[in-house]
Amino acid sequence: MKMNDTIVALATPSGAGAIAIIRVSGPEAISIVSPLFNAKSGKLLEKQPTHTLHLGNIIDSERVIDEVLVSVFRAPKSYTGEETIEISCHGSPYIQQEIIQLLVRKGCRSAEAGEFTLRAFLNGKMDLSQAEAVADLISSENQASHQMAMQQMRGGFSNEIQRLRQELLDFASLIELELDFAEEDVEFANREEFKKLIQRIQNVLKKLIDSFATGNVLKNGIPVAIVGEPNVGKSTLLNSLLNEERAIVSEIAGTTRDTIEDEMAIGGVGFRFIDTAGIRETKDVVESIGIKKTFEKISQAQVVVFLLNAEKFEVRSSSLSASGISPEGGELSELKTEIEKIRNKFPQKPLLIIANKADKIEEAGKESLIAELNSIAQNREKAHFLLLSAKTGAGVEELKDKLLDFVNTGALRNNNTIVTNSRHYNALLSALEEINKVQEGLKMGLSGDLMAIDIRQALHHFGEITGEITNDDLLGNIFANFCIGK
Amino acid sequence: MKMNDTIVALATPSGAGAIAIIRVSGPEAISIVSPLFNAKSGKLLEKQPTHTLHLGNIIDSERVIDEVLVSVFRAPKSYTGEETIEISCHGSPYIQQEIIQLLVRKGCRSAEAGEFTLRAFLNGKMDLSQAEAVADLISSENQASHQMAMQQMRGGFSNEIQRLRQELLDFASLIELELDFAEEDVEFANREEFKKLIQRIQNVLKKLIDSFATGNVLKNGIPVAIVGEPNVGKSTLLNSLLNEERAIVSEIAGTTRDTIEDEMAIGGVGFRFIDTAGIRETKDVVESIGIKKTFEKISQAQVVVFLLNAEKFEVRSSSLSASGISPEGGELSELKTEIEKIRNKFPQKPLLIIANKADKIEEAGKESLIAELNSIAQNREKAHFLLLSAKTGAGVEELKDKLLDFVNTGALRNNNTIVTNSRHYNALLSALEEINKVQEGLKMGLSGDLMAIDIRQALHHFGEITGEITNDDLLGNIFANFCIGK
Repeated sequence: MKMNDTIVALATPSGAGAIAIIRVSGPEAISIVSPLFNAKSGKLLEKQPTHTLHLGNIIDSERVIDEVLVSVFRAPKSYTGEETIEISCHGSPYIQQEIIQLLVRKGCRSAEAGEFTLRAFLNGKMDLSQAEAVADLISSENQASHQMAMQQMRGGFSNEIQRLRQELLDFASLIELELDFAEEDVEFANREEFKKLIQRIQNVLKKLIDSFATGNVLKNGIPVAIVGEPNVGKSTLLNSLLNEERAIVSEIAGTTRDTIEDEMAIGGVGFRFIDTAGIRETKDVVESIGIKKTFEKISQAQVVVFLLNAEKFEVRSSSLSASGISPEGGELSELKTEIEKIRNKFPQKPLLIIANKADKIEEAGKESLIAELNSIAQNREKAHFLLLSAKTGAGVEELKDKLLDFVNTGALRNNNTIVTNSRHYNALLSALEEINKVQEGLKMGLSGDLMAIDIRQALHHFGEITGEITNDDLLGNIFANFCIGK
Repeated sequence: MKMNDTIVALATPSGAGAIAIIRVSGPEAISIVSPLFNAKSGKLLEKQPTHTLHLGNIIDSERVIDEVLVSVFRAPKSYTGEETIEISCHGSPYIQQEIIQLLVRKGCRSAEAGEFTLRAFLNGKMDLSQAEAVADLISSENQASHQMAMQQMRGGFSNEIQRLRQELLDFASLIELELDFAEEDVEFANREEFKKLIQRIQNVLKKLIDSFATGNVLKNGIPVAIVGEPNVGKSTLLNSLLNEERAIVSEIAGTTRDTIEDEMAIGGVGFRFIDTAGIRETKDVVESIGIKKTFEKISQAQVVVFLLNAEKFEVRSSSLSASGISPEGGELSELKTEIEKIRNKFPQKPLLIIANKADKIEEAGKESLIAELNSIAQNREKAHFLLLSAKTGAGVEELKDKLLDFVNTGALRNNNTIVTNSRHYNALLSALEEINKVQEGLKMGLSGDLMAIDIRQALHHFGEITGEITNDDLLGNIFANFCIGK
């Protein structure tokens, strides 16, 4: 990792805006920018203290490129820990490029993705999991992902790992010390206390590992498949949830042939809604492909919303049944079959049966329908039903509440440490494996030198998370996912 | 114009990036942000001096929204002249919105487009033409438009107008003073000197008005129509000029049915290339519409590039003419007809005839072709020709030089004041009209009171440019074209 040069990059999104920020970091940052900057005050930039702002012109020989504001940060009191200059210029892409090119001509190198944060990590301004949280924070789109990234960036996760690592390290040292006195058969490390520590570490690791199921899904959004026969109002429901017309709504049955994904935050938690083509039996080839896709999408979803048309299943009150309008027995049994199909294929997935177009049926019909749905959902774990009108919006808020019920946001609410990063998850799994070995060794009365190997391995995996143990490939992979300028 | 409230807006382009800047300006800017900011240093933001930077957290009650850098600018030492805070946060759209919404809840108002610059103008930090130059600067895409905007923003234009205005104002005062002593028949204003001043003002106004032709075209890019029959390589030439594959290149004649516009900077000057469907006679309806469009595009262009296929007009040397391959007389006369058509329709437009695919013909053929083209271009003002290969790039640099020859960049090179804004142009025309009336009046020995009216009118138009004379409608129109956050 080359760190002795000075890097430059645009730190704000590309394109025209009022202001753009060009970031310069490295040993020469101030000395390169200083001669290119004419302060209005006449002061020399190079002589200015840290955390000060200066108005003036960026000049290329005689030519004024822009009137800018320059921020001065002196090492180590900067984001990277290096000498840093931030140039706030007019947001014209032409001006941005002129300034960056000028700086490159004067000795800066164009920064690679994430290189500023990489330098912050290498200079000890943050550990690796905190650095990773910076990227998560920038891509956070709702309260849940923001809160988890924020907690990680502020060191909540690292602190927990560091604490365990330190305690384990203390014991490892004692055990390794015993090895030096092997002939004297002393025990510096109290085995009973060590057992307790191992137990404690196991518990914390298990808790963190368990949190990944929640963390991962909260970070990426909870996938919800919306299933139902064509024309039942899936797109309208999606629109109603999204409060805007993103999906194409049409009156022709079978319109939704492809799946549409859309994201929204409900109660600060991200949901990804997957509109499917339904699973109605059909001879249409395109629709058949749609049904296959529907099952695929259900398998990826965490929650299934089964949508049906309340009108079709309206049981008229006796006084009206004479009119001959009554739910077809065939429709009802077909509905039951479809729901059973889904339940059999995915018994563990929460299923929410929604009777849409509830605005179109009368009160008595509603009651009968509720009775029918109740009998379908009854005695089935994780099955719920709801009457709703996607068109009028009635019941949509209840749907949102139900969806939130399916999400385990307890850890989030209690501000527990939640693992969201699969790299951390894998390191924690590996650490737990080694800790289990240590526990086995303790039970079996394994010799200190053999146990020390397992302890060192566990310490290694802890170190991978915080970045005490690292290599160029790993760092390359992590920071390649950052944006340029961060 | 309401100015007593505090406004907030995102100042960097929307979307995700490393950093985003949120700008707050107004009497309460610092007092609103201060309680929402927990400085790492523990210092109170409200007590910090101007032009300082502070690291800390933006908090909403207990909840940390982001770790940010806050810049403090004390009135009047800020862009707007007001108390100003700039918050540099992580570039997540979620975080940007959370912070802006928090500030709005705490009493800020979402800024309208250009409102920061409007305040800068109203607070006397810049005049109106300088404020207008800020928007031009942000949208500048090449050296020429950048240089003109920069000169205007730095007051080059305003200074010239102010100087004239002051001299005229001095004379106006003297003449109006004479009116108070009308019965005594005195002349405070030396009529000979006044004549000279009017002459001088006329000259400057004419020079500025003339510069608009250049300035307007330099600001918006010089339109160049590329005309020629299908399959002659227009798209390839465009690509060659653009150094990238923007237009669709195909071997089928008549491919380019619609016009494609593309912009590029040559020698720091913006050109807008307009790819046309050519003017070959055809029975195809779509192509006929294309020909009509071609003429429309030529009428809007400042330069016409007529492209022909060198292969078609290759005159083989006598030793090879026996092979029977020789240019068809019909083709050549047709070419002459087409060129004549353009020249007759647009006699004043510079015409550049380019023989493309020059790489495919032999040396002797080249010479004959040059002779032919010479005879076509000969004795015709503003007609030039050039051999070129869009495919190999040979001759493309010469084409660029020729194009630059057509542009009057003298004023730009000499750093003269160039008028680029049609509002200024119209005000200058009106001012000149009034000045001409004053001159007439002087010749006719018009009485001071009548002359004073014309002088006041001229002064009014000068004031319109710099913003001494203004109204809410005008300001509204000007700043509506700004981006939010500037």
